[in-house]
Amino acid sequence: MIVVMKSNATPQQIQHMAERIESFGLRVHVIEGTERTVLAAIGEKREETKESLARGDGVDKVVPILASYKIASREVKEETSVVRTGSLEVGGQNIAVIAGPCSVESEEQILSSAKAIQAAGATALRGGAFKPRTSPYSFQGMKEEGLKLLALAREETGLSVVTEVMATEQVELVAKYADVLQIGARNMQNYALLEAVGKCGKPVLLKRSPSGTIDEFLLAAEYILDAGNPDVMLCERGIRTFETHTRFTLPLATVGYLHERTHLPVVVDPSHGTGIASLVTPMAAASVAAGADGLIVEVHPDPETAVSDGYQSLDFAQFEDLMVRCRAVAKAVDREIAEAAVESV
Amino acid sequence: MIVVMKSNATPQQIQHMAERIESFGLRVHVIEGTERTVLAAIGEKREETKESLARGDGVDKVVPILASYKIASREVKEETSVVRTGSLEVGGQNIAVIAGPCSVESEEQILSSAKAIQAAGATALRGGAFKPRTSPYSFQGMKEEGLKLLALAREETGLSVVTEVMATEQVELVAKYADVLQIGARNMQNYALLEAVGKCGKPVLLKRSPSGTIDEFLLAAEYILDAGNPDVMLCERGIRTFETHTRFTLPLATVGYLHERTHLPVVVDPSHGTGIASLVTPMAAASVAAGADGLIVEVHPDPETAVSDGYQSLDFAQFEDLMVRCRAVAKAVDREIAEAAVESV
Amino acid sequence: MIVVMKSNATPQQIQHMAERIESFGLRVHVIEGTERTVLAAIGEKREETKESLARGDGVDKVVPILASYKIASREVKEETSVVRTGSLEVGGQNIAVIAGPCSVESEEQILSSAKAIQAAGATALRGGAFKPRTSPYSFQGMKEEGLKLLALAREETGLSVVTEVMATEQVELVAKYADVLQIGARNMQNYALLEAVGKCGKPVLLKRSPSGTIDEFLLAAEYILDAGNPDVMLCERGIRTFETHTRFTLPLATVGYLHERTHLPVVVDPSHGTGIASLVTPMAAASVAAGADGLIVEVHPDPETAVSDGYQSLDFAQFEDLMVRCRAVAKAVDREIAEAAVESV
Amino acid sequence: MIVVMKSNATPQQIQHMAERIESFGLRVHVIEGTERTVLAAIGEKREETKESLARGDGVDKVVPILASYKIASREVKEETSVVRTGSLEVGGQNIAVIAGPCSVESEEQILSSAKAIQAAGATALRGGAFKPRTSPYSFQGMKEEGLKLLALAREETGLSVVTEVMATEQVELVAKYADVLQIGARNMQNYALLEAVGKCGKPVLLKRSPSGTIDEFLLAAEYILDAGNPDVMLCERGIRTFETHTRFTLPLATVGYLHERTHLPVVVDPSHGTGIASLVTPMAAASVAAGADGLIVEVHPDPETAVSDGYQSLDFAQFEDLMVRCRAVAKAVDREIAEAAVESV
Repeated sequence: MIVVMKSNATPQQIQHMAERIESFGLRVHVIEGTERTVLAAIGEKREETKESLARGDGVDKVVPILASYKIASREVKEETSVVRTGSLEVGGQNIAVIAGPCSVESEEQILSSAKAIQAAGATALRGGAFKPRTSPYSFQGMKEEGLKLLALAREETGLSVVTEVMATEQVELVAKYADVLQIGARNMQNYALLEAVGKCGKPVLLKRSPSGTIDEFLLAAEYILDAGNPDVMLCERGIRTFETHTRFTLPLATVGYLHERTHLPVVVDPSHGTGIASLVTPMAAASVAAGADGLIVEVHPDPETAVSDGYQSLDFAQFEDLMVRCRAVAKAVDREIAEAAVESV
Repeated sequence: MIVVMKSNATPQQIQHMAERIESFGLRVHVIEGTERTVLAAIGEKREETKESLARGDGVDKVVPILASYKIASREVKEETSVVRTGSLEVGGQNIAVIAGPCSVESEEQILSSAKAIQAAGATALRGGAFKPRTSPYSFQGMKEEGLKLLALAREETGLSVVTEVMATEQVELVAKYADVLQIGARNMQNYALLEAVGKCGKPVLLKRSPSGTIDEFLLAAEYILDAGNPDVMLCERGIRTFETHTRFTLPLATVGYLHERTHLPVVVDPSHGTGIASLVTPMAAASVAAGADGLIVEVHPDPETAVSDGYQSLDFAQFEDLMVRCRAVAKAVDREIAEAAVESV
Repeated sequence: MIVVMKSNATPQQIQHMAERIESFGLRVHVIEGTERTVLAAIGEKREETKESLARGDGVDKVVPILASYKIASREVKEETSVVRTGSLEVGGQNIAVIAGPCSVESEEQILSSAKAIQAAGATALRGGAFKPRTSPYSFQGMKEEGLKLLALAREETGLSVVTEVMATEQVELVAKYADVLQIGARNMQNYALLEAVGKCGKPVLLKRSPSGTIDEFLLAAEYILDAGNPDVMLCERGIRTFETHTRFTLPLATVGYLHERTHLPVVVDPSHGTGIASLVTPMAAASVAAGADGLIVEVHPDPETAVSDGYQSLDFAQFEDLMVRCRAVAKAVDREIAEAAVESV
Repeated sequence: MIVVMKSNATPQQIQHMAERIESFGLRVHVIEGTERTVLAAIGEKREETKESLARGDGVDKVVPILASYKIASREVKEETSVVRTGSLEVGGQNIAVIAGPCSVESEEQILSSAKAIQAAGATALRGGAFKPRTSPYSFQGMKEEGLKLLALAREETGLSVVTEVMATEQVELVAKYADVLQIGARNMQNYALLEAVGKCGKPVLLKRSPSGTIDEFLLAAEYILDAGNPDVMLCERGIRTFETHTRFTLPLATVGYLHERTHLPVVVDPSHGTGIASLVTPMAAASVAAGADGLIVEVHPDPETAVSDGYQSLDFAQFEDLMVRCRAVAKAVDREIAEAAVESV
């Protein structure tokens, strides 16, 4: 940590801050520059230390040097982590594709979706049973009934099931039916929930908040890891910017940047990231080219009648096209996407 | 709702969309422009309808006309709502000031803070017992012990207590001790929590998410209102933008804009909104001039040693100065801030 | 244009607005909804009209229906425009790659760069002679001397030259040496400059401002088109968001969205879009997968000693690797990138 | 400048970077931390140095310590600069109010505006003769004819004239008629223009770009100062964020922050900052409370018929009300706003 003093800081203020640093058990190194003095604080950084030092008299700013996350850091584990559960493997040579409807709506809908995406080469099924909706007047999901239908779809197809959990009191229930628990973007910093899924015994797909910095994202993952769950997948799904032509802005440079900083695998969600069906396939292909370890895509038998997110959902034919295109791009960047089943071609 | 067709939409597509609109129980009005056709859908708007129509063939975009929130709307209630509990009244002629430390740290700390802020004219005490922290390695709050200290401070001073609740399973406990339950910015769209505080029987201070639009903010309030709790205060605490010189960007135009759209009272948090102690007082004064119904300010006996948020906390003398300045500005805009007790002057 | 009246607008206000619409030579269509009245204004939209109507008594908001740009619109020209000059062709089946140093620094530097990028398959040379620098104390470019060196590099290699013009008074000089005039991101809304390059007789590469909306971007292009120059290439180079781990946020969904709205070809700049050399190649590959018609990439013989932008510049070996990777991805999405010359392989 | 090495940087890489730092004429200080090595580079910072060092092998990041601006820094001049020209004084005890129409439209319009704003207490007249318009199809201003009308208004009222200059070739002409040359937000980084107004001999009002950081803003001012013109006023006019309910987001914390960093006076533009007439007065009052040295406000005899910006313009009565309210707030924060002329009360 570097404590930058103001140019007019007094020797007393500098001395005081040096002592404050030492009082935290850190070593201090005083560097007298041409225009101001800088104090280097050496030792394990703690957030409290930084906040506290920033308030000192004569201090201009405090610059952290070390990342705040530890278990998630690439520095502690060089190779990318692979998360495996049933049909799903994320982080290895193969690029995983998780697909399915925004919401589970009926047995017919979820079973037909599961079969269609499997035929096209997807390796896991997504579908919301508990739905976080911006408006209290919107459809809130089928809840446990939806979870049962997801489990049924797994039985019929063998596909692992990814579904969102919205509250601590639902964790046990959702974990009973699902293979992967998804933390939605709105809950990235719902710490009680992060701790709960950290103890649930199932892998977690953690979505980035639309206003989450990379540090906040990795510290959210750290909550889950620190609670004892090593199976965390990060999901970039778009951030909130001044752009309004797309629902969110999907920053694919995050993929490579995360790979440099963390060993956790990175999945991209081009459906929420764009909010426009016609842009999903090009952005899925771009995600693969950018190095994503997985994709999560909304697919619906009849998007026009979907109860939620229809405008960004692909129909079966569009999804098949996405898979063909992404498979080709994956090969171009020395990765693989599972082949489509023969009958679907 | 306005459905804008593409300029090359076919008559069949236009006809299909008109029928789709009618199938939702809405009346349709076809407007043939010089370059394209527009369909006006008349009737009560539902989110699902919009999403579904946006996916139709030949549709360029769907423009909503009505706000999605209802109970929160100024259109259903013309006068500003006043929230009252104990010493706190927000939304009337007087501007409320809620002050206190970021975290409850000890009996000594919270009692001295309560007395100091009361002497300066504050009308409620804030203090965190359950703390949402970006890092799992940061201090997480004194929990129930902290709640008890807050209740003790209320006994000693008569000040109402405002404190954050982070999870549904804490709602009952927090409501037992606190007068106002605060929903933190990270939980603005934690819908299970919103529903829980909607049924807790105590007023709620709802903070805006750093990436929350005004519609999302008011729909979050709507969750609480719709669950039966009419006592909701909105709190602007800064949004995330490209600016990094302040912790967040505090957009005070929100105050006037919210007053036009909703009857709910509006509180501003200049501490989190700036993240820099020296900017808190000018931004508090600016908030009052912009029409805020209340302020929430972090105050600590010794900010340099605070376990959290010290860099943005005022000491007692700085807070007294803030109150003097805000009181003068309040008068200039025909509002009032409670006078300081005689002994503090 | 849709004029939405407030729910409490009086019949007089509605009548007044209807007359105002007609006074602009537009037809008006009154739609009485369940909660408020909406006026549809039919006819050619003008910006002034919208602004003026928005100020009317009783008006809640005005929603434009038609895009403000005309010549740039895909609606007036269905096929993508192809810009051709010398060795450069942008907008066709082949994906163009423009590469070279941020600044022209010396004859040796620009000639070696030109030969290296040509060997790797690039089809045009970039290099700054007039440099827009954030600080007045930074290197400002070699100016005319730099232009002469670019022209020399063209003579030696046959590569077309792309270089920035920063001011109207430089347009004639730059147009004398360059094949394509680049308008930098900071000048996207420098209207005098846009008009000047609209009359310069050479193709223009127009970069998006970091805060430019798509409409503003296309209207900036419209200034050039309207001045008589049909050869405009759009360049996405990243926007300013709250993300600080990359220099800008590169939103590749722009590529597909622009293709839907305009016939102008779209180039992506992964160097400025990321600001980190290690992220340039993955984002270049992602741009190709997303449908870009061209790339513009910073390449330098020795990035560590570059006078500007060294941290985001690739060396020759890294650029060759970028080309190999992008060529493979291009094939995967049914496009082509020119083969490397035999001697470079 | 602090060069942070990666945790796995080799001794050779560290040694190489230390030598690189010294090769720039800087002293180097090697700090071996518990997890990584940090190099402090001591001496005058140069932008090129930072960029170059950031590219070194084994370097994680480079953290600048000193600001890049010099002449603009509060560190070189402790008291706030006062800009004076004719009736206008910005930076002293009095808060200056610059008001007038967006565009000069006619003699009648500009003269009546000048008289009305003067009667209400404004100290300078604004009005656009050269108009930067997003669309080439919008009204582009009366040009020299408009400048003559502004000069006429000055003759009649004695008010100093503030007007925008959009291009270097207009500087001489605009400087002939105007008292203050305004650089619009879109031109904040039009360096040729900044240099030209740096030599024009008249004070400059420099508007912040909607995507400009504070450093970029102050470096833009530095271009003008460095060209020899000490009379620079900074103008905060709103930034581009995800908020769409206002035209821009007006971050008033900028005022106090700028006052800490620079001696240049700070003006706020609540008209462009909100884009909504009803929000202009509260935000003007908030700007005064936040410490602004001046306001610039759009006022029009009949906003509904204004050729530009009517939706954010105040009429005369609304402006008088703004002045009454801001005068009261100014007194509350120990500043003054000129009294209204007797006849206007």
